[in-house]
Amino acid sequence: MRLIIDTDTAGDDTYSLLLAMRTPGSTLEAVTICVGNVPFDQQVENALATIEAAGFSGKVPVYPGARRPMVKPWEPSTMHGNDGMSGANLPIARQRPETKHAVDAIIERVMAEPGKIDILAQAPLTNIALAVMKEPRIAKAVRHLWIMGGTDNAVGNITPCAEYNFFIDPEAARIVFEAGFDITLSTWTLTMRSGLFEGDQLDEIFAMNTPLSEFYRKVSRVPRETAQARYGRPVSTHPDSLTCACALNPELIESSREAVVRIETMGEITRGFSAIHPPKLGNRWPEYKVNARVIEKASNDGFLRMMKQAFAEDQP
Amino acid sequence: MRLIIDTDTAGDDTYSLLLAMRTPGSTLEAVTICVGNVPFDQQVENALATIEAAGFSGKVPVYPGARRPMVKPWEPSTMHGNDGMSGANLPIARQRPETKHAVDAIIERVMAEPGKIDILAQAPLTNIALAVMKEPRIAKAVRHLWIMGGTDNAVGNITPCAEYNFFIDPEAARIVFEAGFDITLSTWTLTMRSGLFEGDQLDEIFAMNTPLSEFYRKVSRVPRETAQARYGRPVSTHPDSLTCACALNPELIESSREAVVRIETMGEITRGFSAIHPPKLGNRWPEYKVNARVIEKASNDGFLRMMKQAFAEDQP
Amino acid sequence: MRLIIDTDTAGDDTYSLLLAMRTPGSTLEAVTICVGNVPFDQQVENALATIEAAGFSGKVPVYPGARRPMVKPWEPSTMHGNDGMSGANLPIARQRPETKHAVDAIIERVMAEPGKIDILAQAPLTNIALAVMKEPRIAKAVRHLWIMGGTDNAVGNITPCAEYNFFIDPEAARIVFEAGFDITLSTWTLTMRSGLFEGDQLDEIFAMNTPLSEFYRKVSRVPRETAQARYGRPVSTHPDSLTCACALNPELIESSREAVVRIETMGEITRGFSAIHPPKLGNRWPEYKVNARVIEKASNDGFLRMMKQAFAEDQP
Amino acid sequence: MRLIIDTDTAGDDTYSLLLAMRTPGSTLEAVTICVGNVPFDQQVENALATIEAAGFSGKVPVYPGARRPMVKPWEPSTMHGNDGMSGANLPIARQRPETKHAVDAIIERVMAEPGKIDILAQAPLTNIALAVMKEPRIAKAVRHLWIMGGTDNAVGNITPCAEYNFFIDPEAARIVFEAGFDITLSTWTLTMRSGLFEGDQLDEIFAMNTPLSEFYRKVSRVPRETAQARYGRPVSTHPDSLTCACALNPELIESSREAVVRIETMGEITRGFSAIHPPKLGNRWPEYKVNARVIEKASNDGFLRMMKQAFAEDQP
Ligand SMILES: [Ca+2]
Ligand SMILES: [Ca+2]
Ligand SMILES: [Ca+2]
Ligand SMILES: [Ca+2]
Repeated sequence: MRLIIDTDTAGDDTYSLLLAMRTPGSTLEAVTICVGNVPFDQQVENALATIEAAGFSGKVPVYPGARRPMVKPWEPSTMHGNDGMSGANLPIARQRPETKHAVDAIIERVMAEPGKIDILAQAPLTNIALAVMKEPRIAKAVRHLWIMGGTDNAVGNITPCAEYNFFIDPEAARIVFEAGFDITLSTWTLTMRSGLFEGDQLDEIFAMNTPLSEFYRKVSRVPRETAQARYGRPVSTHPDSLTCACALNPELIESSREAVVRIETMGEITRGFSAIHPPKLGNRWPEYKVNARVIEKASNDGFLRMMKQAFAEDQP
Repeated sequence: MRLIIDTDTAGDDTYSLLLAMRTPGSTLEAVTICVGNVPFDQQVENALATIEAAGFSGKVPVYPGARRPMVKPWEPSTMHGNDGMSGANLPIARQRPETKHAVDAIIERVMAEPGKIDILAQAPLTNIALAVMKEPRIAKAVRHLWIMGGTDNAVGNITPCAEYNFFIDPEAARIVFEAGFDITLSTWTLTMRSGLFEGDQLDEIFAMNTPLSEFYRKVSRVPRETAQARYGRPVSTHPDSLTCACALNPELIESSREAVVRIETMGEITRGFSAIHPPKLGNRWPEYKVNARVIEKASNDGFLRMMKQAFAEDQP
Repeated sequence: MRLIIDTDTAGDDTYSLLLAMRTPGSTLEAVTICVGNVPFDQQVENALATIEAAGFSGKVPVYPGARRPMVKPWEPSTMHGNDGMSGANLPIARQRPETKHAVDAIIERVMAEPGKIDILAQAPLTNIALAVMKEPRIAKAVRHLWIMGGTDNAVGNITPCAEYNFFIDPEAARIVFEAGFDITLSTWTLTMRSGLFEGDQLDEIFAMNTPLSEFYRKVSRVPRETAQARYGRPVSTHPDSLTCACALNPELIESSREAVVRIETMGEITRGFSAIHPPKLGNRWPEYKVNARVIEKASNDGFLRMMKQAFAEDQP
Repeated sequence: MRLIIDTDTAGDDTYSLLLAMRTPGSTLEAVTICVGNVPFDQQVENALATIEAAGFSGKVPVYPGARRPMVKPWEPSTMHGNDGMSGANLPIARQRPETKHAVDAIIERVMAEPGKIDILAQAPLTNIALAVMKEPRIAKAVRHLWIMGGTDNAVGNITPCAEYNFFIDPEAARIVFEAGFDITLSTWTLTMRSGLFEGDQLDEIFAMNTPLSEFYRKVSRVPRETAQARYGRPVSTHPDSLTCACALNPELIESSREAVVRIETMGEITRGFSAIHPPKLGNRWPEYKVNARVIEKASNDGFLRMMKQAFAEDQP
């Protein structure tokens, strides 16, 4: 599988990159950086440092993209520490970012080989929306678009009605879901169901004692501690890497459904809300068009196995 | 238990009135009519006809209230047939509606005996909102307010994001949930989980062959047929009467939680959406105030028993 | 002319009451109090004190109405000082407020004599909206409804897009403009054009040295000083009393047009905005229904003459 | 003056191009095409045909840009006929469009010579918004941005609250006005005041009997007829060419003011509304940042002179 990952690189975003680089059968062709978790240039460095930590320095180009959401201002989050890496203090990578803009990198790579490349969008959807605004044909030229974002009829994580990625740029999310891509959606609701590692699972990883399990231990520190405070247990939440795992190995998906996904861009309490619903209900509402497959459940065990494989000393 | 029911009398609204009149220990003190299902004067007649069918003619006054939602226009529905009674063609009742306005009837009765009277609101919340606008102290003087409306993080029934009662008058719903009432909320999501009667249950009721089981059979015909078409089985859905059953007999409630309920009055796709969520999530969002108990599950068996008891020939 | 004035009594609201009591040919039948400028009970006292100052104690009943806007919370303003009377420190009036609710007083008086009574609405439109919600027929039974509110394609005074009265309760304003009343609208734009008294005009009034010119001098102090600070001259602004003057003496109206008035209840920057426009533009937009006469210009001289007449020692 | 014109080429858009090509001292460096009046490819052809008609074939590159607004769908208008040229049936131009995207053409040209190039945006602002999203530094690198759009506290032309360009892509307009450009705004309100040619002025142009006065006569036919029907006189309206004339010759500007311009992207009746207001009003509202000069009045005579000069047989 050939993959471009669009990422606001912080915390779990990095494990997703590790999975894409170190899972057999996967080729991470490019990384594109999008506004999101932490200050933009820090995200670029986080991606480069992750590539270096994985032993792929110089092999995966990193393209900076949109530095801000489309319409509304945005503030960096400190959820993963100020650097988005729990203060892991990784060395500055030797590899430097490309000068080409992320949007052009996406368009050129996809349009050069239509039907060959998957995109994993694990950040606000600003870059993907700009790409489809500039070149509408990429919607059909991307092989498959894997999106982490939204909630599946459940409570949000940044407001009671919205998940972070869709809340930061709802207009972009709306553009992407209306553009005609072949989409699989991995929601925050799925993360809470299938994308958590509990204490014993974390211990399993830490016990590996490899360079990348150490990377994981350091980078996950702040969100683990936050989770401890919030949920009372040292869980680690993996929205992006779970999505990547599902993309690389769709057999992890235990349950999914075809659905209509629409994004509220307005609203007083619902900005960024993802309405996920069947296309039709009796004759009560007009027939909507199914535009995504929504993952309902994934194998948590299988996901852990893939993460451990990625963190293992030698590439299998 | 002393009860005022605010109703847009059609279909299931009527069984709720029957329960309130014919369940031992319950006194239906007044019925107030609110804009909703079918043309307003038809709703008044449906309430009067139901009272007569229950043998309570002259004993339960019926007060007409708001003939339209607060802000946005509205159209009658044909979900329960044009008359809201599946064309049951009941005789016009001898009892006539009161001249006092529903809003004044509610205020006067509640303020005359603070802490003594429960209200069951099984229609759009226009009358209740107008009452609290006119006399804010009723919020604390009503013993308990039982509301049928909204969805509990699930798909709606009139739009993909909204349940009928809240969609018809979201401004009223918002006013009521912000007014300080002691509220139990019974959602459409609960109806779908605990408020359906399947074919064998319907057969049990029909086999009673009493005047009120016949009333039920006739009045439920159109929605049963709609449900058959929509879900492929002859189920009958009971949002209002299930709420009434829970109010009369709270032991039916098998699971509930305290929650924040907020209503979206704006939004492009979410107008009438009920956000139901915990008061706090880490430090991510400001602390909201819990304003309702939300029923998550009720005893379907117990509910059926109460309905059969209400439909039985003699008052137990 | 027989008049009910609905008022959030502070500052200029009181001169409007004086005009209605002391202009020959005018009968102020009742005063109803609505949420608005200052704390509600203070507004009631301000109305009573004004009636007493005008020598009408016991002759004009005062009915308290809505203590809050329909949907959104509201904060009192200090534009006219904390008491709304520039700290004039008038004695508490002997006359006390009625127990009947303003909304019922309006409905009963209007419906008792359809076509006989004008209403001057010089506050947020909450009371009028509640009245028409409760008794839709008053829209046609009121002889004429004079409304102070909104802007006529110009900048607002509470937000850049909205005038105070419509901003405080846009839902109410919308209800009223859609209800079918025969409306004349006096906007903040008109106030700025025709409802200001400049320094020399103020001196003319102050030189009268009557009890009511003194009342005017004291009560107008804070807004005069604010205007001095804002516009650099000691102007006094008279939205409500100018509207009353036009109602009592329509010959003051020098220019007006029939127009469509619609109120934005949503919007991010435009909540409370009054769109005032012709019913049709070529075939570009659907035909809207004219629902108000909008005053474009009134005689400032004639208005000053009416005010001075009202403030004169003896009733002419 | 070196100019890039971003245009949804139809009707008056073409005269603006003619002005920019044929006014002494003006260099039209590039034309970029944006979604707007008529089907996108037709707009490209209209621009090319206009360049050919002006004798500039091969000298002004035409770059196709955004084919749709950012968030909401859009329908072509027939205001200038189906082809946007009143059916003038011009020959297909020999010059063909460039393959580079408009957004890249704008960024590259502006960033190559910061402070040297003005942009005239006479279409929905989609291209300009995408350019600033991709390269935020162009906001300061463009010498001056001339925008035709919005209304200046007056009625709109596509809805009662909105002018066409801002209504088609309000999100884009908002992005552009918040991006930090040095902006002069020419509104529809200005067009109605200073940008109309009446019958005698039209006759003056027609009497020139040059190839370009003929071009003008043919291309302006449908909107002239529409105006005749709408206003009862054969006026021709010139929003874009008036803006171009002001850019080329700022002495035409007789009155302007520095103001805050904000775009409503939400709202039920106000989507696309341009709030234009002073930065501060007493202490009532927070201090906003002035972000544009708004033209209030321009010389209609001077504008006509410039148009005639551009239509004259020989370049002066
Ligand atoms: Ca991410
Ligand atoms: Ca009901
Ligand atoms: Ca007032
Ligand atoms: Ca144009």
